[in-house]
Amino acid sequence: MPERPAPTRDEVLAYLHERRNWGRWGEDDQKGAINLITAEKRAAVARSVRSGRVVSLSRDFPKMPGPGNPQPAQHFVQVMGHSGTAGGATDYYGISYHGYQATHIDALCHVWDEGGMWNGRDPYREIRSQGTRYGGVENWREGIVTRGVLLDIPRFRGDPFVTMERPVHGWELEDVAAAQGVRPEPGDALLVYSGREAWQASSPEWNPYGAERPGLHASCLPFVRDNDIALLGWDLMDASPNEYGIPWTMHGALFAYGVALLDNCLLQPLAEACAEEGRYDFMLTVAPLPVVGGTGSPANPLAMF
Amino acid sequence: MPERPAPTRDEVLAYLHERRNWGRWGEDDQKGAINLITAEKRAAVARSVRSGRVVSLSRDFPKMPGPGNPQPAQHFVQVMGHSGTAGGATDYYGISYHGYQATHIDALCHVWDEGGMWNGRDPYREIRSQGTRYGGVENWREGIVTRGVLLDIPRFRGDPFVTMERPVHGWELEDVAAAQGVRPEPGDALLVYSGREAWQASSPEWNPYGAERPGLHASCLPFVRDNDIALLGWDLMDASPNEYGIPWTMHGALFAYGVALLDNCLLQPLAEACAEEGRYDFMLTVAPLPVVGGTGSPANPLAMF
Amino acid sequence: MPERPAPTRDEVLAYLHERRNWGRWGEDDQKGAINLITAEKRAAVARSVRSGRVVSLSRDFPKMPGPGNPQPAQHFVQVMGHSGTAGGATDYYGISYHGYQATHIDALCHVWDEGGMWNGRDPYREIRSQGTRYGGVENWREGIVTRGVLLDIPRFRGDPFVTMERPVHGWELEDVAAAQGVRPEPGDALLVYSGREAWQASSPEWNPYGAERPGLHASCLPFVRDNDIALLGWDLMDASPNEYGIPWTMHGALFAYGVALLDNCLLQPLAEACAEEGRYDFMLTVAPLPVVGGTGSPANPLAMF
Amino acid sequence: MPERPAPTRDEVLAYLHERRNWGRWGEDDQKGAINLITAEKRAAVARSVRSGRVVSLSRDFPKMPGPGNPQPAQHFVQVMGHSGTAGGATDYYGISYHGYQATHIDALCHVWDEGGMWNGRDPYREIRSQGTRYGGVENWREGIVTRGVLLDIPRFRGDPFVTMERPVHGWELEDVAAAQGVRPEPGDALLVYSGREAWQASSPEWNPYGAERPGLHASCLPFVRDNDIALLGWDLMDASPNEYGIPWTMHGALFAYGVALLDNCLLQPLAEACAEEGRYDFMLTVAPLPVVGGTGSPANPLAMF
Repeated sequence: MPERPAPTRDEVLAYLHERRNWGRWGEDDQKGAINLITAEKRAAVARSVRSGRVVSLSRDFPKMPGPGNPQPAQHFVQVMGHSGTAGGATDYYGISYHGYQATHIDALCHVWDEGGMWNGRDPYREIRSQGTRYGGVENWREGIVTRGVLLDIPRFRGDPFVTMERPVHGWELEDVAAAQGVRPEPGDALLVYSGREAWQASSPEWNPYGAERPGLHASCLPFVRDNDIALLGWDLMDASPNEYGIPWTMHGALFAYGVALLDNCLLQPLAEACAEEGRYDFMLTVAPLPVVGGTGSPANPLAMF
Repeated sequence: MPERPAPTRDEVLAYLHERRNWGRWGEDDQKGAINLITAEKRAAVARSVRSGRVVSLSRDFPKMPGPGNPQPAQHFVQVMGHSGTAGGATDYYGISYHGYQATHIDALCHVWDEGGMWNGRDPYREIRSQGTRYGGVENWREGIVTRGVLLDIPRFRGDPFVTMERPVHGWELEDVAAAQGVRPEPGDALLVYSGREAWQASSPEWNPYGAERPGLHASCLPFVRDNDIALLGWDLMDASPNEYGIPWTMHGALFAYGVALLDNCLLQPLAEACAEEGRYDFMLTVAPLPVVGGTGSPANPLAMF
Repeated sequence: MPERPAPTRDEVLAYLHERRNWGRWGEDDQKGAINLITAEKRAAVARSVRSGRVVSLSRDFPKMPGPGNPQPAQHFVQVMGHSGTAGGATDYYGISYHGYQATHIDALCHVWDEGGMWNGRDPYREIRSQGTRYGGVENWREGIVTRGVLLDIPRFRGDPFVTMERPVHGWELEDVAAAQGVRPEPGDALLVYSGREAWQASSPEWNPYGAERPGLHASCLPFVRDNDIALLGWDLMDASPNEYGIPWTMHGALFAYGVALLDNCLLQPLAEACAEEGRYDFMLTVAPLPVVGGTGSPANPLAMF
Repeated sequence: MPERPAPTRDEVLAYLHERRNWGRWGEDDQKGAINLITAEKRAAVARSVRSGRVVSLSRDFPKMPGPGNPQPAQHFVQVMGHSGTAGGATDYYGISYHGYQATHIDALCHVWDEGGMWNGRDPYREIRSQGTRYGGVENWREGIVTRGVLLDIPRFRGDPFVTMERPVHGWELEDVAAAQGVRPEPGDALLVYSGREAWQASSPEWNPYGAERPGLHASCLPFVRDNDIALLGWDLMDASPNEYGIPWTMHGALFAYGVALLDNCLLQPLAEACAEEGRYDFMLTVAPLPVVGGTGSPANPLAMF
C-alpha cells in the first residue's frame, strides 16, 4: 500500500553500510549518537518546559505470564517482623528485559549484522557471558536528557493502529512531522507511536515472538540518519517479516548509526498529552541502570511538557 | 560529641507518632509527600536549569560479591548468532536491591513500626508475597521530578566522612544549609552527603549488614518534617545502632511522613559538581520502574544543573 | 462414565477429615507417611532388584516457554577461558518448580485446607516468605527409597490417555492392580500412569493452568489411605474441576495422610519397562534437594528393576 | 611431607594427556566413565544391601550468605490463600551451584585444558550461553547407581582434617584402602573424605574462592585411572595451589578420563556410618536433574548399606 516506491534491497543495505557513523566520534567511542546531545541542548530543552506535566512512557514491569509474555519477569516479596511490631518488606526483581514486553533501552552492543557491531567491533570478541567489554549500557550512565518529538501515526492516518499490511514508511514520518508542525533537530529523541495498545486489544492472542509484527519499514532509516536522531523510541518496532530478508532493518540504526533504541514504550498517554498540551516536543529523560557490561536496561522514560 | 543536647527517646517517638502526615492527603493516598511536588514546582525547577550538566547519583549495579555485598546482583548474558553473521546479545538482571549496595528508592510500604505502615495501614494485611496491595512503587510511576538540594557534610566538617562517633544531627543540617546558602522548600528532595566512598575506602572490611553504620541521627527528623521534604536521599543512612533502641529512626520518615527514601546514592560526584557549579540546588529526576506491588525500585537518579 | 457410584461430597470430606493421620507419628512429626518406610523395607526392595535396569521418571528441566509452560525455568551458562587454553563453564538454574511442568516432590507444608496443614498446624504461622518452619522438604533429606508400584491405566483401558470425561476412580485402581497381579503394601510408592504424553500430543494448546485437567478422581483417596501408601506419584494429577467444589481432592493426601506427592512424573518409559520386565514393582529412589524450609524440590526419581 | 616422591610436572601432564580415555567409548560418547557401570553391576550392588540404612551425602542448599558463600542460592516462598481457608505455598529456587558450597555433580563439559574437553571436543564450539551441545548433564539422566567406596583420610591419619601442608597423595589412597580392607573395582564411585567440616570449623574465615585449599594431590590421578573409577566424590577438592602450575589437576579426571565429579559432598556422616556398619562399600545413587545442555546439577547423593 505504500504511496511511494519502497527502497530496493541494495538501497536498504546502503543505508546500513554506507551511511553508518562508525568512527564519527572516534574509534573507541562507546556513546554513539548520544554524543549529539550537548549540555546546551539539555539546558535548552529544560528551559522549554512550560506546564510541568509529566508522562511516563513505561509499560508495567511484565510479571504476568501470557501468550505475549512467555518469559515473565520475577517478583518475590519477603516480609520481616510480625503483627504489632516494627518490620519491613523487601523484594527481588528478575528480568530478561529484551523482547516485546518490558520498556527498555538497547545498549550499543545489543545487535549487529555481518559487518560487526557499533564502530566495527567484533561482537564475538567483545561480548562475554559475564558482560560486554564494549558498548555496554554503563556508557550512558549519565542518562539521556534531550528534546523528544512524538510522531502520532494513528492520529495522522485516522486508524487506531498500524497494520501488517501497511507499515510506517520514511516518507510518512516526514508527512506526520509536517502535519504536526514539528521538526526534528540533531540530538533529538524520535518517538513513533503506532497504536500498540489498540493493536493488542484487537489481537489478544498475538504472540510478538512469532514472525509477524506490524511496525516501521526499513525506509525510515534515512529519516533517522538525515535528522541526526540520537534515540529512537517506539511501541511497535521493525515491521516483520521484511521483504528484503535483512535480519535487522530499523534495529540497524543501533549498530550503524549509534542510535539508542527505546523498545516497547507506552505511547498512548504521551500522544494524548501532546494533543492536550498542543505541542509534540517535550523534555525526555531516560535513566538506564548502570550495569557494567549490560546490553541494555529496563527503564521508565519520562516526558515533561 | 553533639554540640547541642540530643532529643530524648520520647521526643523522637513524638517525631514519628505525633507529627505524622497520615490522612493529610486522604485516607487512601498512596503517594505520600510526593504530593507536595506540583506541576508548577516541576516547571520552575526545569526552567532553573542553566548549564545542562548532568550527574548520575547511582552506584554501579552491584554484581561483585564481597564483604559489603553478600547477596550480589545477577547478570547473565546470552549471545545469539555466530562469527560473521547477524546476531544479538541479551541479558538477565536479578536483584534484591534493598540493603546497602544498590542505589534504590523505597516505596511507602517498605517499612513500618508498631503503629503500622503509611497512613496507618496494617502491613500484614496489605503485603502479600506476590506484591503489596497498598503503597507500592507503581504509585510513583510518573517519576519524581523536583528541586534537589545537597547538603555536603564532609565539606562543612572538613573531614572526609561521617564517623560512628559523630552522626549527623538535625541542627547540623541547618548549619550546613546556611553555610551553603541554600534553603529547603516544600516538595524538595533533600540529599545528605556523608562521604560514603571515603568511609568505605578507610574500612574495606566493613560489612554494612552488621550492627554498626555511621549516618544520620534521629534528630534530623524535624528538619525533614518542618521543611516538608518530599524525598530524602543519602549515601549513608540511619546511624546505627541508635541510643534509643528504636527500630527505625530516620527510615521512619517513610511511614510517618510519607517521604520517599533514596538509599545508597552516589553523592561524591554530585558534591563536586555542586562546588564547581556554585549552586547546591538542581533539577532531580528519579524514575522508578513501575513494578505493580513492588516495595521499591533500583534507580539511576539524575541531577541537572 | 463411572461404573460404580462416586462418593458423595460428605464422603470425600470424611476421607480428608475423619481418616487423617494427624498425630499418628507424634504431634511434632515432620516426615508424614514416609515414616512407613523402614530400613528393613528398604533393604528388602534393594535385594529384590534383578536386572539392574534403571528408568528415570523425570521430565526435562522445563526451560522452553510455551502454552503449557508459562513460567519457564531459567538456565544461563557462563564460560571462562578462551580458545586454546584451560577453562570452564558454569551455569545458573532458577525454577518455580511447582505447577505442571517440572517433575518434583511436594513437601508436607505445600497445601492445606481450612482445617490446616499436616498434623493440624496453621500454615499462616508456620510458613514465612524465607521458608517454612514446619514440614519443609529438608525433613526428607535422607531421600525416599522404597518399593514402587506402577498402575498403568492406558494399558488397562486400552485407551492412550485418561480423558476429562472419565477420570481414574478408586475402584479402577483396584481393578488395575488385580489385572497386573501386583498388591500395594504399607510404605509403598504408588505411581499412577494416565498417559500424559499422549494426552498432550493430542491437545498441543492445552494449558494445564486452566481449569480443565484430566486425572485422578477423589474416590482414589481411600485406596491411598487403606493401603498405607507413603508416596503418590503421577503424570496427571487431581482431575479438575471436581464436582464437589473441594479445593484439594487427591492433593489432600498430602496434608491429611502425610503422603508425599511426586508431581509431573514421566511414566511412559516406566510403563514400557514394567511391561518388558514383566513386573510392576521396582525399587524407587527419590532424592530431594535439602532446602531448609522448602515447600518441595525438583527431583529425578529413579526406578530400578 | 610426602613419604614418597611426588610425580614431576611431566608425569602429571602424562596422566592427563597420555592416559586419557578419549575414544574409548566411541567418538560421540557423552557418558564417559559412567559407561563402566553395567546393569549387572547395579543389580549386584543393590543385592549387596544389608541393613537398609540410608545416608545423605548432601550439604544444605546454600542459602546463607557468608565469607565462604559469596553467591548464596535464592529461595523465595509465596503463599496463597488466607487464614481459615484452603491454600498453598510454592517457592522459587535459584542457584549457581558450581563452586564450593552446593553438593553437585560436574557434567563432562564443565572443565577442559588446552587440549580440549572430553573426547577432544572444542568447548568454544560446543558450549553456548543457552547450554552445551555436547557433554551436558542430561546424558546422565538415568542417574548413577553403582558401588561406592569411601576412603576415610582423617581416620587413617588420626588427624581431624587434611591440611594445606599435607595434601592427599595417590599412595595414601592405596594405603587407606588396604587399611580399611576395601578394594576399588571398575565402575565404582570413589569417595574421599578429607574432614571438611572440621577444617571449616577450624578456619571460620576461610574463603574457598581464594587461592588456598587443602585437598587431593595430582598424584591421585593414576589411582583413579588404574582402578577405572567412574565417579570421584569428595568434600575437599584438588589441593590448591599446586606446585606444577597446572590449571586443573584432579579435576582433569573429568575431561581426560570421563570421570564424573561429585563436589562438596558431606562425608562426615557417611564416614561414621561406614565405621558403625563395619563396611566401606555401599550402594550409591546420584540423580542429577535432567537439564538439557547443563554443565552439571545440584544433587542429593544417597548411600545405602
